[in-house]
Amino acid sequence: MPGNTFGKLFKVTTWGESHGKALGAVIDGCPPGLLLNEQDIQKELDKRKPGKGNLISKRKEKDKVEILSGVFEGKTLGTPISMIVRNHDANSKDYKDLRNIFRPGHADFTYYLKYGLWDFRGGGRASGRETVARVMAGAVAKKILSKHTTIIKSKVINIAYPEAYKEGDSSGGTIEIIVKNPPKGLGEPVFDKLNADLAMAVFSIGGIKGLEFGLGFKSAELKGSENNDVFNKTNNAGGILGGISNGEDITIKIAVKPPSSISKEQTALTKNLKKVKIKIEGRHDSCLIPRILPVIESMIAITLVDHLLRRNAIKL
Amino acid sequence: MPGNTFGKLFKVTTWGESHGKALGAVIDGCPPGLLLNEQDIQKELDKRKPGKGNLISKRKEKDKVEILSGVFEGKTLGTPISMIVRNHDANSKDYKDLRNIFRPGHADFTYYLKYGLWDFRGGGRASGRETVARVMAGAVAKKILSKHTTIIKSKVINIAYPEAYKEGDSSGGTIEIIVKNPPKGLGEPVFDKLNADLAMAVFSIGGIKGLEFGLGFKSAELKGSENNDVFNKTNNAGGILGGISNGEDITIKIAVKPPSSISKEQTALTKNLKKVKIKIEGRHDSCLIPRILPVIESMIAITLVDHLLRRNAIKL
Amino acid sequence: MPGNTFGKLFKVTTWGESHGKALGAVIDGCPPGLLLNEQDIQKELDKRKPGKGNLISKRKEKDKVEILSGVFEGKTLGTPISMIVRNHDANSKDYKDLRNIFRPGHADFTYYLKYGLWDFRGGGRASGRETVARVMAGAVAKKILSKHTTIIKSKVINIAYPEAYKEGDSSGGTIEIIVKNPPKGLGEPVFDKLNADLAMAVFSIGGIKGLEFGLGFKSAELKGSENNDVFNKTNNAGGILGGISNGEDITIKIAVKPPSSISKEQTALTKNLKKVKIKIEGRHDSCLIPRILPVIESMIAITLVDHLLRRNAIKL
Amino acid sequence: MPGNTFGKLFKVTTWGESHGKALGAVIDGCPPGLLLNEQDIQKELDKRKPGKGNLISKRKEKDKVEILSGVFEGKTLGTPISMIVRNHDANSKDYKDLRNIFRPGHADFTYYLKYGLWDFRGGGRASGRETVARVMAGAVAKKILSKHTTIIKSKVINIAYPEAYKEGDSSGGTIEIIVKNPPKGLGEPVFDKLNADLAMAVFSIGGIKGLEFGLGFKSAELKGSENNDVFNKTNNAGGILGGISNGEDITIKIAVKPPSSISKEQTALTKNLKKVKIKIEGRHDSCLIPRILPVIESMIAITLVDHLLRRNAIKL
Repeated sequence: MPGNTFGKLFKVTTWGESHGKALGAVIDGCPPGLLLNEQDIQKELDKRKPGKGNLISKRKEKDKVEILSGVFEGKTLGTPISMIVRNHDANSKDYKDLRNIFRPGHADFTYYLKYGLWDFRGGGRASGRETVARVMAGAVAKKILSKHTTIIKSKVINIAYPEAYKEGDSSGGTIEIIVKNPPKGLGEPVFDKLNADLAMAVFSIGGIKGLEFGLGFKSAELKGSENNDVFNKTNNAGGILGGISNGEDITIKIAVKPPSSISKEQTALTKNLKKVKIKIEGRHDSCLIPRILPVIESMIAITLVDHLLRRNAIKL
Repeated sequence: MPGNTFGKLFKVTTWGESHGKALGAVIDGCPPGLLLNEQDIQKELDKRKPGKGNLISKRKEKDKVEILSGVFEGKTLGTPISMIVRNHDANSKDYKDLRNIFRPGHADFTYYLKYGLWDFRGGGRASGRETVARVMAGAVAKKILSKHTTIIKSKVINIAYPEAYKEGDSSGGTIEIIVKNPPKGLGEPVFDKLNADLAMAVFSIGGIKGLEFGLGFKSAELKGSENNDVFNKTNNAGGILGGISNGEDITIKIAVKPPSSISKEQTALTKNLKKVKIKIEGRHDSCLIPRILPVIESMIAITLVDHLLRRNAIKL
Repeated sequence: MPGNTFGKLFKVTTWGESHGKALGAVIDGCPPGLLLNEQDIQKELDKRKPGKGNLISKRKEKDKVEILSGVFEGKTLGTPISMIVRNHDANSKDYKDLRNIFRPGHADFTYYLKYGLWDFRGGGRASGRETVARVMAGAVAKKILSKHTTIIKSKVINIAYPEAYKEGDSSGGTIEIIVKNPPKGLGEPVFDKLNADLAMAVFSIGGIKGLEFGLGFKSAELKGSENNDVFNKTNNAGGILGGISNGEDITIKIAVKPPSSISKEQTALTKNLKKVKIKIEGRHDSCLIPRILPVIESMIAITLVDHLLRRNAIKL
Repeated sequence: MPGNTFGKLFKVTTWGESHGKALGAVIDGCPPGLLLNEQDIQKELDKRKPGKGNLISKRKEKDKVEILSGVFEGKTLGTPISMIVRNHDANSKDYKDLRNIFRPGHADFTYYLKYGLWDFRGGGRASGRETVARVMAGAVAKKILSKHTTIIKSKVINIAYPEAYKEGDSSGGTIEIIVKNPPKGLGEPVFDKLNADLAMAVFSIGGIKGLEFGLGFKSAELKGSENNDVFNKTNNAGGILGGISNGEDITIKIAVKPPSSISKEQTALTKNLKKVKIKIEGRHDSCLIPRILPVIESMIAITLVDHLLRRNAIKL
């Protein structure tokens, strides 16, 4: 199951369970000489911190990053950058009753199916908490992109039921990502197209159900004469042609499902395949969007930096 | 630019330009002992052959496969399977006038940007003709899936302008894929989720602009209590939970843009960045959908088989 | 520079500088359900601990392992296993004078050449201390091999100058490795032959200058009729035929150079390319052999387990 | 069994059985703009052609290369370069009697063990003929190295029994490789050291039993004060320090075993594990050295170019 590494030249490996001792990321392939300190990482981590809003979990995630390697005298060495966050407020007791229950919409069942066992404490590795590691790695990627004056902007298009939490329910929503001033020439023909890798990056985040580039599903309703871009005037393609960035804004629209953990009563299955009624208490976000934004930005930043380094490689 | 290989254990490498000598695929990692002959491949290749319909190119693609290695006495050896198709009816003359022109909506500009040169004969490597190689590899993958009684069904949901070709234009459309009886337990947690790899597989095909799993963008408009599946009754998730297949049908909806090559007059750029009016004559499909279906099926089959072999690997 | 990961299915990523905060390994791809605890790791780590002998450094390396993820209720989860060791007795002061000096025989010069900067504190990432992480990963691999009753034995053939340290010098030596009862059928034809991967594994350890399988250089002096093995009687080949293990003992002979750090006066270069006389004080092993044995065993164990999982993958 | 690809950025995939239809190589990742034609490849292929000497097989290998993709108007496109050689003089009849026999010293037994079947016609994929594909890819790599004025020289140190063929026997021997003027800064710390990758490259060729860098086994007999290099004066290390090339000549010594196919009578095993007496007639080299030299050079060239591209990738 070696599926915990992303990228080919800017390689990010993440590890850690929701209620384990810690979560971490190792970046192998960050170029040497980049100014980097813990504040650069912490700043991004704080963006996915649970706040006081109505949409997000009450779990207090201090999430203090520690850089353990790869940085010396304020600069990256070109060696692996290891970053960790210790788990503190992980209340495993909430989960004891779930030891034998597959929660609806969660990965409990499929993990058990595949591995014959699973960490029932908050989903273990399948928890949204795993994204802490992605944000740490994304912070480094963003630092590199900033040298190319590339900025990733994310905005909420819609949250279907902003007050779903009051009824013990949750809500889906949609997001738009715009990469301003992306480097040109990123992406490889055929399988490793930039859009293919970006799609993989985004769908690798739990809860994503749909994704469009440029006009997306709208372009399926058009004629070629309507959809073809006029150079420098329209950007229906969303900044990528033939799998390679052309320098225009990269635009992506993303559908996020409502969180599966709700306190309303639901029917679940036990390991013995009996039906039981459950209410998932714990502390859960009623909408993924506020906290998923920095995660999506991170995955996009990592993908862009990986292709930035890959673009270097083609010189004779 | 090593971006022409797909898969980790069932590795497919493709090569070939639209108007070069030949196109081919090498599969490294096909298990030994699989019954395989050229008819198995030819049958699938014929599905993407240009026909007599109104939607597809008049280019006569005989596309006769030859298996050059990896099969002995009717069975796979476990060694690389090399398959080629020679190009015959590749009329490069049609393209001579395009030597210095970036066609709108095509990869000409981005390839030139990235590589400093490009094969202007029908898009070279960026041509849809490249997918011949994917279909050859997909045929082998389908043969393996059939041993697991897994079937990939594709259907057209909509073609926006069925008679666009009469006005020298082209049309977009939407497709649905249903994987019936998929193996359970495919997909890896975190980055290599089955849906992430399937998305990458599909977006690696030219012309794809949007993709949804299960309810897709619709789930973004729902509450958790509406979206969460009832075991064995609903399949809003589309057959994948936490990145791992649960055995339910895998359902995918895909947006296909209208082909960029149209015979209507358009404005294009020259290498010297001057605007010119062009009509793209050649022989082009006015809608990608009829011929893209077997390609999408192939990429999905390859992805599923790759994960099938990866699932094997976790045994102690 | 993503060169810090080893293996394809049992993937080991290591990180950490000699005088940084910590060293660690992440294993991605360990199958679920393996009994594993910190003692399993600690036991192996203790083998490379500096002792009281004459050959090895006085640096006190407590090297206490902590498992941060991937193990739950005493069993592996199938998720990444993250292990760290904190650095304690790392006396960076010893190295301050070396900020601008390339030590003879060390990687200082080549790192600087490549990265434009380097961690001068004890070699940073190029230090032998990096092997702590390999031994941690190797301990997990050995645990898996023990289920196959495979044992890796290492023995010293020769230490050239056992008392070199008394004269402020160091000594080379040779080692033999015997893998008893290795699984059959490990290794892939062509590039990923088992011997090729084992050679890479061993040469990836600092200080290795030569390696032989079976009769090695001796076989170059023989006739085919002398060198060809008689089934079940001789094992000149060293347990691997055509890149695949045949079940016989795998035998490897390895040449280890004398450590470059000696307290005898030597001529070194400064960053400004001036010659200076230096004596390397610090605390250094006068022969690598005692502590390199568990490292070599670890790399061999990791390679074998990686191929064990790869062998699983070829089933239809 | 995806073990038929070598390299990470200059990726070479080979395919083909000894007595199949053809042999080929696909290079994915060759930079665009390199002048390349079939003569560049043919020139290298001719070096491994069987000649009139006493040491090498009488099989007539015309081995005429055809480039099928990746080159347009005399220059590489940056897309995959596919090259094939058709098999002509493959006399399978010689092998019919071997259908049920495991030849001593050959991979027949281990392939059968692993795959449950094997191509008994001359070893199939395990045949030395597979190296045709390596030489084709090596020719492209050499073309790239020549732009860096890097030259790979190989020389025979010893052939143990030059007239072994007269007695129906074969002979081992030793080789030295010197890479003159290698690019500096090639190789990655830790696992992907240049020497580790070179060792893997060379051991991936059939018949290699031992390998040394620089002083090799000799350095195991020295003191540090004797072995440490004096800058610009000695090169005991063989051009690589800490896994990274320092610009000095890279020196490698290699032990080649005597070919296993001899016409002297030997005892072999049948599939039913009975002992039989066999004389291997066919047409076989009595010493691998003359024809293995261009193969070793090719693997070294491929490795160096792969690291050349990887060195590019570390720029911010």
